Amino acid sequence: MNFASDNVHGIHPKVLKALADCNDGAMGSYGADPITARAEEAYREILDAPEAVVRFVATGTGANALVCAQLSPSFGRIYCHDSAHIHRDECAAPEFYSHGAKLVPLPGAFGKLTPETLADAIRFGKAGSLNDGRNALVSLTNATEWGTVYDASEVAALSAIAHEAGLTVHMDGARFANAVAGLDCCAADLTSRASVDALCFGGTKNGAMGAEAVVFFNPAHAEGFDYRRKQAGHVWSKQRFLAAQMLALAEGGLWLDLARHANDAATRLGQGILKAGGTLAAPVQANEVFATLPAIAHERAKSHGAAYHLWQEKPPLPGEDVTIRLVTSWATRDEDVSRFLSLIA
Amino acid sequence: MNFASDNVHGIHPKVLKALADCNDGAMGSYGADPITARAEEAYREILDAPEAVVRFVATGTGANALVCAQLSPSFGRIYCHDSAHIHRDECAAPEFYSHGAKLVPLPGAFGKLTPETLADAIRFGKAGSLNDGRNALVSLTNATEWGTVYDASEVAALSAIAHEAGLTVHMDGARFANAVAGLDCCAADLTSRASVDALCFGGTKNGAMGAEAVVFFNPAHAEGFDYRRKQAGHVWSKQRFLAAQMLALAEGGLWLDLARHANDAATRLGQGILKAGGTLAAPVQANEVFATLPAIAHERAKSHGAAYHLWQEKPPLPGEDVTIRLVTSWATRDEDVSRFLSLIA
Amino acid sequence: MNFASDNVHGIHPKVLKALADCNDGAMGSYGADPITARAEEAYREILDAPEAVVRFVATGTGANALVCAQLSPSFGRIYCHDSAHIHRDECAAPEFYSHGAKLVPLPGAFGKLTPETLADAIRFGKAGSLNDGRNALVSLTNATEWGTVYDASEVAALSAIAHEAGLTVHMDGARFANAVAGLDCCAADLTSRASVDALCFGGTKNGAMGAEAVVFFNPAHAEGFDYRRKQAGHVWSKQRFLAAQMLALAEGGLWLDLARHANDAATRLGQGILKAGGTLAAPVQANEVFATLPAIAHERAKSHGAAYHLWQEKPPLPGEDVTIRLVTSWATRDEDVSRFLSLIA
Amino acid sequence: MNFASDNVHGIHPKVLKALADCNDGAMGSYGADPITARAEEAYREILDAPEAVVRFVATGTGANALVCAQLSPSFGRIYCHDSAHIHRDECAAPEFYSHGAKLVPLPGAFGKLTPETLADAIRFGKAGSLNDGRNALVSLTNATEWGTVYDASEVAALSAIAHEAGLTVHMDGARFANAVAGLDCCAADLTSRASVDALCFGGTKNGAMGAEAVVFFNPAHAEGFDYRRKQAGHVWSKQRFLAAQMLALAEGGLWLDLARHANDAATRLGQGILKAGGTLAAPVQANEVFATLPAIAHERAKSHGAAYHLWQEKPPLPGEDVTIRLVTSWATRDEDVSRFLSLIA
Repeated sequence: MNFASDNVHGIHPKVLKALADCNDGAMGSYGADPITARAEEAYREILDAPEAVVRFVATGTGANALVCAQLSPSFGRIYCHDSAHIHRDECAAPEFYSHGAKLVPLPGAFGKLTPETLADAIRFGKAGSLNDGRNALVSLTNATEWGTVYDASEVAALSAIAHEAGLTVHMDGARFANAVAGLDCCAADLTSRASVDALCFGGTKNGAMGAEAVVFFNPAHAEGFDYRRKQAGHVWSKQRFLAAQMLALAEGGLWLDLARHANDAATRLGQGILKAGGTLAAPVQANEVFATLPAIAHERAKSHGAAYHLWQEKPPLPGEDVTIRLVTSWATRDEDVSRFLSLIA
Repeated sequence: MNFASDNVHGIHPKVLKALADCNDGAMGSYGADPITARAEEAYREILDAPEAVVRFVATGTGANALVCAQLSPSFGRIYCHDSAHIHRDECAAPEFYSHGAKLVPLPGAFGKLTPETLADAIRFGKAGSLNDGRNALVSLTNATEWGTVYDASEVAALSAIAHEAGLTVHMDGARFANAVAGLDCCAADLTSRASVDALCFGGTKNGAMGAEAVVFFNPAHAEGFDYRRKQAGHVWSKQRFLAAQMLALAEGGLWLDLARHANDAATRLGQGILKAGGTLAAPVQANEVFATLPAIAHERAKSHGAAYHLWQEKPPLPGEDVTIRLVTSWATRDEDVSRFLSLIA
Repeated sequence: MNFASDNVHGIHPKVLKALADCNDGAMGSYGADPITARAEEAYREILDAPEAVVRFVATGTGANALVCAQLSPSFGRIYCHDSAHIHRDECAAPEFYSHGAKLVPLPGAFGKLTPETLADAIRFGKAGSLNDGRNALVSLTNATEWGTVYDASEVAALSAIAHEAGLTVHMDGARFANAVAGLDCCAADLTSRASVDALCFGGTKNGAMGAEAVVFFNPAHAEGFDYRRKQAGHVWSKQRFLAAQMLALAEGGLWLDLARHANDAATRLGQGILKAGGTLAAPVQANEVFATLPAIAHERAKSHGAAYHLWQEKPPLPGEDVTIRLVTSWATRDEDVSRFLSLIA
Repeated sequence: MNFASDNVHGIHPKVLKALADCNDGAMGSYGADPITARAEEAYREILDAPEAVVRFVATGTGANALVCAQLSPSFGRIYCHDSAHIHRDECAAPEFYSHGAKLVPLPGAFGKLTPETLADAIRFGKAGSLNDGRNALVSLTNATEWGTVYDASEVAALSAIAHEAGLTVHMDGARFANAVAGLDCCAADLTSRASVDALCFGGTKNGAMGAEAVVFFNPAHAEGFDYRRKQAGHVWSKQRFLAAQMLALAEGGLWLDLARHANDAATRLGQGILKAGGTLAAPVQANEVFATLPAIAHERAKSHGAAYHLWQEKPPLPGEDVTIRLVTSWATRDEDVSRFLSLIA
């Protein structure tokens, strides 16, 4: 009954098996192996992007920060939602990798940027003097940090604003599979067809051990990226084992099945919470539930071993309602959901 | 019959099994799991360093570069052998992570720094003006890039020179296990007891998938390192799988058994090459053999599928002797050694 | 009648003369000259800080950013007011020099941090995980970007909060002289006696050509700073000419006389604007006036050649009141003030 | 009788006068002033480069390092002579500003790269794997650190090698005026007409207080440079005083007159040393003399107050000949040359 994060769970059996399956024999190192080639191709297919450059790294922070550095100079402005992982949770990795790019956090309900807010911010940055730095990148998180999703038309609208002003668009897709599953759309609809320039397609939270795909839809944007990744120490010598994870997720649509499973559990949790008299702090559109519960429900759940994070700035006073975050994953069991709901009922 | 590198091989079965064995259930992320704690403790024991701070990362370049940045300011001078991996093979990762530290390459036979050369270089750096930067770090590679080893007294002598002048000492131990095996000594003899300040204890080349231990013998040297590693994107959310690899190598002395196996194969190769009339370009003291072969032997080996690198600046002229590098590993089979030797006989 | 900024004016005659006076003959370069030694000593005296390390650079951005890098690691959090120059106007120089430190902007009326806001922010940063980075530095601007000042007890209170939590304190004193003049206190009251760790003591806006003093009150904080400044290209070979400017300002209290002159002009402007029926957007405590004028007054002033900046996010609609910023300096003439006031009357 | 460096001397009277001449009145800050515009134009004319982008900074290290960062990514290789100032004397500023670019020092007699050495090095870098970083920039110093010069055809030959392999070419011209004077050629012959991409045109050593022009002959290479310079803190608010120095040197060919004066003094010193029985360690082609003198001559000169640097790795043994460096400047007086020569006669 652990809803603390999707990364508290282990590796999906098929991913684990893939590690064993590619273990025999010698292979070229640093990516010169057939597994890597097949995995890169698999993601080009999923994204309907035959020209895209695909590379693998082990961590989401590594993936995001390398892309930020690739698409922003040290004096660039990177616009993102105020709740964005790159702004709040990566220990300033984008600033480190880009050597100083300024993250400009913007408000927006339920973790989502609005076209108006983005357009205003970009206009201000553009009009600015040297003092402000130069407009460089817009970063969208999909699914967002509030478990909501941007649909294809929303992404396209934000991308259009960015491109019109000469900025590129990055999508932090640590939970990209959950966004696609939540929208029941194509991966391409949310990315290449919506003019996204670079995608970090998360594997780790979705059943991999530690693997993310970095995708540049325009090969020109990937210029020099292999050196950048190498210099960062994010190239594996035995890279087949990084690629094999992502390949296992790609094969047979496993990535989408796992995301659907996680999303379904979140939907059930959300509905159950409403039934139990709780309220939702954000719509449930992917694999996260933000809910407010009576203190007694919270205490009962906790005392029976439910693990999750409080999601409020200050600790609750005794008896006060509490706002919590529940994250589901490929590994969340139906009985865990049921049990949690019965505890808070 | 692949001697191209120790990283062309896969994962040792016990390491692979360790991944599966720790897969069940939810665990704290980012290192807050029991596997990580046990693995850190295991390396403190191996190194007889109960106070040491141990951390895991997936790549040797990441490990080395993070340590360089930890122990050198941007304006520091880092002394290393001219053949050092940090200088030749990491795409300037130490310069990147330290934001500009100057690597000062020094000569020395068979990949080894001599006390005289190091002392002279440090003295020059110390006497220098602001122009030269400030003495910061000495980096030793053990086993070296030429397959030789520093013994305990050699390490201690170099450390003493460094410390006397106020520098700290880093050991790049991508093949540390091979050095210990080659010397038949204790791991502590080459490190904590020889006044080494930080060790990158390699797992990847020695049977892991992608795992290295960063060890700071003096906890004060690790101050802030957890943030540094996080900001670099080198912390895994599911870190148990990074730690489990290193733990599997630690248990029952597997790391040493595997290194001995690799070293033995190299010894056999070296002896066989001498018998076959070849010459050795460096003493064989770990798991690498640098040898000069007649062209005909080289061609026969290649044409029968032996994989290895030429180790000379220019391509050989037809008929000319060739100098090659052969690397053995935990996975090198006796029959591969025999077959190679019969081909060049 | 130019109130656009204090840096649109030239060099005070005494500073210009000082350049000529130290021009004869050969002197040691890179600071090994007697002018530099005297100038460093002069600022130790002004600040009543006999142990302080004093260094000179030519620009305020250079001074601030070098201090930020000196006192914060790449993974540090730097707390400042939302209007701070280091956050708004230096093209992310602090992030660049520190290689990624996170500037955390905080609200506060009239450009000033409050103890409560700062304490809350630091507490949050401290409680945070690795994700948030590590608390490092508090940066105060005095006089502030809104022309207000922190008095000695306010600085001391903020410093105490910072130090209690293990952070150091930087004062951006681009208009430090104006703060001292405005408060009619000692320079030491606002810095060394108020537990400030590092001060950027501005000369440029106060009559120098381009010169700022960087002061570390605790010499331990200056460790390695000479290398850092050198690596940044901020050491002059003919450094006597950098030092001579600051020395000229120091001698006979010129720095304070010039600041008083500028402050008096601002006071007159503020009073005159009130009399003319305008309103002040912030108290006038140094050499800046933020005022709201009727459109007609604004247009008359502009059409007669008054230069100043609008200080509102959007351009005013026709007939709407406008908010403006007026900056006075050592070079502001009484007749310019009178003329401006008569134009808006 | 100070020959320690060209930067031990002060400001040429005409440059000093120019500071005073532009001091009156208010002007736009950060370069928005008419002096800056005229000075930029003056250097475009001197270099016969009407399209060039010209910017001013106060220090040579700042100028060189900013150009290196502009023309090399963090993973770039920068080829330079082993004696180059950017490699030996700037405290790793190029590595800092570029965030890790690898300086590759190359040998060559009298401080000059040869086409063969450069071509070989570039070829090796190009053939290399990711490990080596990517070829980015060739940096030439003219006049060199050994007081020699590359003539137009030599520069063109080296540029051609660089460009053919896709690298750009930087010229460190801290003593560019001395090179032009020494060759009695046009400034354009050594730069734009010889396919140099970026020039740091030194003013400081040639009579300015602290001023260098950064010139990008192809405006595309300057893209974003204004932000880069701002972020580095190398933009002056009162920039007219930076530009006025360079403008004064440009007007009436003062820069060339001063360089000729310095070169003539060096020529006299070199000839006199030969007559006195000394030897020259390098041809005298600009304003530096490297000479070997008998111990007795050295001691006599020193004891009579001649200032200069020894130019040998180890201190001389008693009675041994000494190798020294003498640098002349715009301020070197004929009588100082005569006196030095009479002392060593």
